[in-house]
Amino acid sequence: MSNHETKKQEILDAFQFRHATKEFDPGKKIPDEDFRFILETGRLSPSSVGYEPWKFVVVQNEKLREKLREVSWGAQGQLPTASHFVVILARTIKDTKYDSAYVENQMLNVKKIPEEIFEQMKIRYKSFQEHDLHLLESERAIFDWASKQTYLALANMMTAAAQIGIDSCPIEGFNFDKVQNILKEEGLLEDGHLAISAMVAFGYRANEPRPKTRKPLEDVVQWIN
Amino acid sequence: MSNHETKKQEILDAFQFRHATKEFDPGKKIPDEDFRFILETGRLSPSSVGYEPWKFVVVQNEKLREKLREVSWGAQGQLPTASHFVVILARTIKDTKYDSAYVENQMLNVKKIPEEIFEQMKIRYKSFQEHDLHLLESERAIFDWASKQTYLALANMMTAAAQIGIDSCPIEGFNFDKVQNILKEEGLLEDGHLAISAMVAFGYRANEPRPKTRKPLEDVVQWIN
Repeated sequence: MSNHETKKQEILDAFQFRHATKEFDPGKKIPDEDFRFILETGRLSPSSVGYEPWKFVVVQNEKLREKLREVSWGAQGQLPTASHFVVILARTIKDTKYDSAYVENQMLNVKKIPEEIFEQMKIRYKSFQEHDLHLLESERAIFDWASKQTYLALANMMTAAAQIGIDSCPIEGFNFDKVQNILKEEGLLEDGHLAISAMVAFGYRANEPRPKTRKPLEDVVQWIN
Repeated sequence: MSNHETKKQEILDAFQFRHATKEFDPGKKIPDEDFRFILETGRLSPSSVGYEPWKFVVVQNEKLREKLREVSWGAQGQLPTASHFVVILARTIKDTKYDSAYVENQMLNVKKIPEEIFEQMKIRYKSFQEHDLHLLESERAIFDWASKQTYLALANMMTAAAQIGIDSCPIEGFNFDKVQNILKEEGLLEDGHLAISAMVAFGYRANEPRPKTRKPLEDVVQWIN
């Protein structure tokens, strides 16, 4: 096989390797530099109009893990056993509305966009948020929009992990309100600028998974030629 | 460097290579087997409770591309030049509500879950959708939930493409209602069971991008030890 074909096969093998790991081997820890690599793929992920509307909270504290476990039915086996457990937060309307202080800082200081261009972009983004995607129809709609961006980072972190032999499990099985309360009490939500989007556990599998099931390609792809 | 370190560096290089390509070289086409590989990474992506609530419509027809271009300010340079242009659809409440015919088929026939276990899962998923994530609070909320899952596939397709030297651009810059109308007229929405989630163009860059900007890791990661 050519290098190109080998690379494709290795990537597809990683997709087969990855599965929603319910329980990790509690004795195996991810080396620091490998976990940093995983976080880097999250950080370097794309996001709509470059807002980077996310924060990755790495919960290694056992007491906090136990508190989260009480309100997260989908993380019962993962929270006590994962080498690293990440709570992914997304930014709320306070930071993602086109005219927020967060957006201004992101555009001028992170993306280094000249001020006069940013002023033009703001008009476009206003119309984008208000009319094109109706994101300002509710606080939930614009939060879910930010949350969608965090799913790009989530996918990239899980796939990158799989490519170096590290298991993971994405988790939505939690009570939103109760997790919010816990995170608020811990002072992690930046005064309402952040809210829980998803969770993801990383480590090494304790058991082999069932074979992967997916619909065939022809059921999920349609060509318009 | 060890094989492990080389692999990590190659993946990070792909993240640096990937950028939102505004214009592609119209003369360069992605080989069929490479594009099929990209679609495979979408198909093999994870989704909440295994619903696979997505469809990938590959729009190669010039007339349809032109129609979409008229209502997609964010795809002006991409639609006429992309080697392959994908409209990502997500499933609506008709298919994603815990008691839908789609979910039943997905669980029993795709995932091959025994009927009695599925009946138990349905109770859990009802509570998950109703109480944990409040997904049934509006049709939009449950659609955005399905749409989040498509962003996992979107990220995986773009990163996999980058790893084999193929450029891409994720696109949200379109008028939702107008794109819906076009797709409905073309008979692509399965009678309201699907709606537009995002678009993504693939091909080979026409120009070199500006350097990538991102917040530093310490601004997006917080450790709770």
